[in-house]
Amino acid sequence: MSHKKNLTVYVSSFIEQLYQSGVKRAVISPGSRSTPLAYLLENHPHIHTYVNVDERSAAFYALGMAKASQEPVVIVCTSGTAAANYYPAVVEARYARVPLIVLTADRPHELRDNGAPQAIDQINLFGKHAKWFFDMPLPESEVNMLQYTGRIAAKAAAKSAASPKGPVHLNFPFREPLSPDLSYKPENQPLSAVYLAEKQLNDRYLSDLTAQLNQSKNGLIIAGPSEDQQSAAAIIRLAEATGFPVLADPLSGLRTLMTEHPSVIECYDAFLRDDEVKKNLQADLIIRFGGMPVSKALTQYVKGSACSQWLIDEGADWRDPTSSATHYLEVNDSLLAQQLAKAADQDNDDSWLYQWMTLNEKAEREIRAYIDNETDEGAAVGTLLESLPEGAHLLVGNSMPVRDVDTFWIRGMKPFHVWANRGANGIDGVVSTALGIAAVKQEPVYLLIGDLSMFHDLNGLLVTKQHASQLQIVVMNNNGGGIFSFLPQAAEPEHFETLFGTPPSLDFKHAAALYDLNYDRCETKEALKESLNSDSTQLKMMEVITDREKNTASHRQLWKTVARAVRGD
Amino acid sequence: MSHKKNLTVYVSSFIEQLYQSGVKRAVISPGSRSTPLAYLLENHPHIHTYVNVDERSAAFYALGMAKASQEPVVIVCTSGTAAANYYPAVVEARYARVPLIVLTADRPHELRDNGAPQAIDQINLFGKHAKWFFDMPLPESEVNMLQYTGRIAAKAAAKSAASPKGPVHLNFPFREPLSPDLSYKPENQPLSAVYLAEKQLNDRYLSDLTAQLNQSKNGLIIAGPSEDQQSAAAIIRLAEATGFPVLADPLSGLRTLMTEHPSVIECYDAFLRDDEVKKNLQADLIIRFGGMPVSKALTQYVKGSACSQWLIDEGADWRDPTSSATHYLEVNDSLLAQQLAKAADQDNDDSWLYQWMTLNEKAEREIRAYIDNETDEGAAVGTLLESLPEGAHLLVGNSMPVRDVDTFWIRGMKPFHVWANRGANGIDGVVSTALGIAAVKQEPVYLLIGDLSMFHDLNGLLVTKQHASQLQIVVMNNNGGGIFSFLPQAAEPEHFETLFGTPPSLDFKHAAALYDLNYDRCETKEALKESLNSDSTQLKMMEVITDREKNTASHRQLWKTVARAVRGD
Repeated sequence: MSHKKNLTVYVSSFIEQLYQSGVKRAVISPGSRSTPLAYLLENHPHIHTYVNVDERSAAFYALGMAKASQEPVVIVCTSGTAAANYYPAVVEARYARVPLIVLTADRPHELRDNGAPQAIDQINLFGKHAKWFFDMPLPESEVNMLQYTGRIAAKAAAKSAASPKGPVHLNFPFREPLSPDLSYKPENQPLSAVYLAEKQLNDRYLSDLTAQLNQSKNGLIIAGPSEDQQSAAAIIRLAEATGFPVLADPLSGLRTLMTEHPSVIECYDAFLRDDEVKKNLQADLIIRFGGMPVSKALTQYVKGSACSQWLIDEGADWRDPTSSATHYLEVNDSLLAQQLAKAADQDNDDSWLYQWMTLNEKAEREIRAYIDNETDEGAAVGTLLESLPEGAHLLVGNSMPVRDVDTFWIRGMKPFHVWANRGANGIDGVVSTALGIAAVKQEPVYLLIGDLSMFHDLNGLLVTKQHASQLQIVVMNNNGGGIFSFLPQAAEPEHFETLFGTPPSLDFKHAAALYDLNYDRCETKEALKESLNSDSTQLKMMEVITDREKNTASHRQLWKTVARAVRGD
Repeated sequence: MSHKKNLTVYVSSFIEQLYQSGVKRAVISPGSRSTPLAYLLENHPHIHTYVNVDERSAAFYALGMAKASQEPVVIVCTSGTAAANYYPAVVEARYARVPLIVLTADRPHELRDNGAPQAIDQINLFGKHAKWFFDMPLPESEVNMLQYTGRIAAKAAAKSAASPKGPVHLNFPFREPLSPDLSYKPENQPLSAVYLAEKQLNDRYLSDLTAQLNQSKNGLIIAGPSEDQQSAAAIIRLAEATGFPVLADPLSGLRTLMTEHPSVIECYDAFLRDDEVKKNLQADLIIRFGGMPVSKALTQYVKGSACSQWLIDEGADWRDPTSSATHYLEVNDSLLAQQLAKAADQDNDDSWLYQWMTLNEKAEREIRAYIDNETDEGAAVGTLLESLPEGAHLLVGNSMPVRDVDTFWIRGMKPFHVWANRGANGIDGVVSTALGIAAVKQEPVYLLIGDLSMFHDLNGLLVTKQHASQLQIVVMNNNGGGIFSFLPQAAEPEHFETLFGTPPSLDFKHAAALYDLNYDRCETKEALKESLNSDSTQLKMMEVITDREKNTASHRQLWKTVARAVRGD
């Protein structure tokens, strides 16, 4: 068979099996060696393709799509450093547990390790950060080969989607010429179906744990960040069955449901900063779901709790940096929560739950007053959250934005969804992640981001020229690395501004002009509110000008006010 | 000893040994975990530090400095995806053989692999692309430990600088608190001096090769891309001693010297495209120095030559994708060239050399006429080259710019220096590499770059706000991936523009405004010339508007014209 036929049949068949395995989206970065993959993905009748020039942004764009759709997304690039640009998003996908299928084009063997142009060693390029790597065979179109590579495609999709989800990497050697036959109509091939199951506790373990659960009077549930959108409801049901309060990280999905579920506690970060308050809140059992919560105050409370602590993690990463868990449960969140809720003793004393709810309400009141009365970054974040329409999706940047959302997302706001890149907590790729979420969701999408993080992924905005994106971007511009002002390093003025503040002095209106974005400069939270309330179907950037020093001081004042309120001073 | 003292003494001592080992520059990206390294580098009396927020750009900025200074440059970042952003430049440094010392901050052991925030597995993060990886011990200040880590610093510098030069990676675990004592005055410590030697052929091998050399009538030298600035003069001396023509890649350093050395042939890419011409140019020995030349015509000529072919490469990468070398010489370029020149039989017939020189002059004449008379991208590149002041440094982007410089850099222009990232030939990081060269060189620095490549590293421009940079940027804006128009894929209109042309439709005047650059839009080569001739001490961006289709057609016309001229039709 001809070279072109071999190439076309091989790659088409591989792509069709990816589609049959649940892949619906592919993000392609331009390049020559990747021509067969790019053309045949573009040619597939059902896979949506998106072109994104900067591979670093492209990979985060796909990450956003995979987070929002809960399905594996393909990324395709050419050989050389192109693929190395995927690394930050591959690392984030690994730790945040997001399914990505990385397809890199490579030279064939005879052009490897002998100085050929744009050829680098791509074998195991992402090291331990890819869940699976496979170097593909050269294109052939014998049935045996198609059956084999069809299974590789199915396996790649399955491995990316199996718990813990994550990135897989397949490397394709292609010989020239690289153009496939676009008129080729694939014949029906026998493809593989894959069924993935979740881990569930056996009865003996379950009865052990149920006995312990039912002995607990002052139990506490902690819902950390999770990419599993199914688990939130199950965890709330467990809380209600046991009568335990559930401390809900902004990335757990539980806060979206807090209006109807009073046992969801959202202001713990504010009131657990006080030692006296903590002393009166001694739990006798802590059940932890998800990754490490954003709140450092909560982490310290957990570390200081001498009780039994169950860490639930099907992904078996033992995410427990304080080494305080006493029981590691490698089991699916939802299944365990359902099992325990069913077995829980319903007859509970409410006083422990009310103690948490009372503290929470007091903190809520102070935080609401702060949003109304203050003028700093925190108040602006509160204003944003109050302005979000019901069902909105908000992606928050790392460093200050995610911490401020943790603080200022309180009861009484309309239900919305919050996302962040909390696998490795980087400030990179955030804009592209938001655009990826926007590409999948039909509801309005918002991005809350600091100026350094906005700068880091400005290139992400290029896709908005090709793909209509409804995204409202709120840039908190405090001219530099705001979070560093909260660190002990800030007390040493020598070199601080040079090394940490790193004021980029960027006026983002020029960035908005480069990418044809609508732009509003907001000097006050009222101006922000007005801008947010105008048309949200257009792509817009709102730049909120804030002050790092004032911000640090007013946040610290808030913690004092909350502590006074909850102590009843 | 206190934690702070241990931290300060350990890191200071390490940095002092780096300095003693030849490190004079460090590029720092802001972060918290890397505080001890950042503060103490900033505090060092002799190491120049540069802050660069985007780690991807930061690493390429350091790469440019290391290329220009021929000395190892340090890059420092915090833990997490920050370090993954270094990967593209690390890969480029590996293949282009540029010494980089990557210092990443990490969590201590007790915060690894247990879900701690911003902690990823950084062990062997760059896989095979780092020449050496070492996970450092925790800070201690006993003399034994300082002696040990001092040797690690010396070894890191030596490994990065030993042939083939490249990147090394050290990973530092730091516990909180992270601030060092900036008032600490280091005591004199016994430090290590390192002597690195080059590989030289022994007498027996040398006399074998000399005998072969002196039997050759029609020998040819090829000088490919090289980061070794010393070798150019030695290779020219060998050419003159043997009477062989030397085909000089634009990145070999030889073209800078071509005015006084007629045996340097620069127009081979134009005239070796013709089969009849090639048939009359049969070499009986080819001696190749450096990496793969930019010219595909030359590569095909080499592949078609059945003679003895010596590949000289001290770095032992066997850079020979056509598998045509008959002898691999793992020996230093300059030393071998000197040895052979000394042993060469001076009594040569000039006719072979004159044949090459005559063809070269004919091609030169056509190319000069093209620069004068045409209006496309090639003529604009020729105009740029003619306008460069003596001693200027020009960094050229990959894809079209480096190929156009190969074509249009001809005799009669003032001597200047040309650089490119030809390790992996990526379009990424090029702006930062140019800024790194500008940070080291006192002469004027120019950047010739396509619009996609300019876009890819726009973030690189941020450093110009903190560090004065004399850089003249010429952006060839053909609104997309111009090189793809030369590929067979361009013949298939379906999907071509979406996947390959990828028109970004960027007006770079907004980018210039974002970074406070002077900006000229040049619609003609005359406008470009005028802009180039104005003040070159300021940072400026010149955007040259060109057309991809016209460009492809006129280049093809040039090859035909040259072929007619050299064949004497």
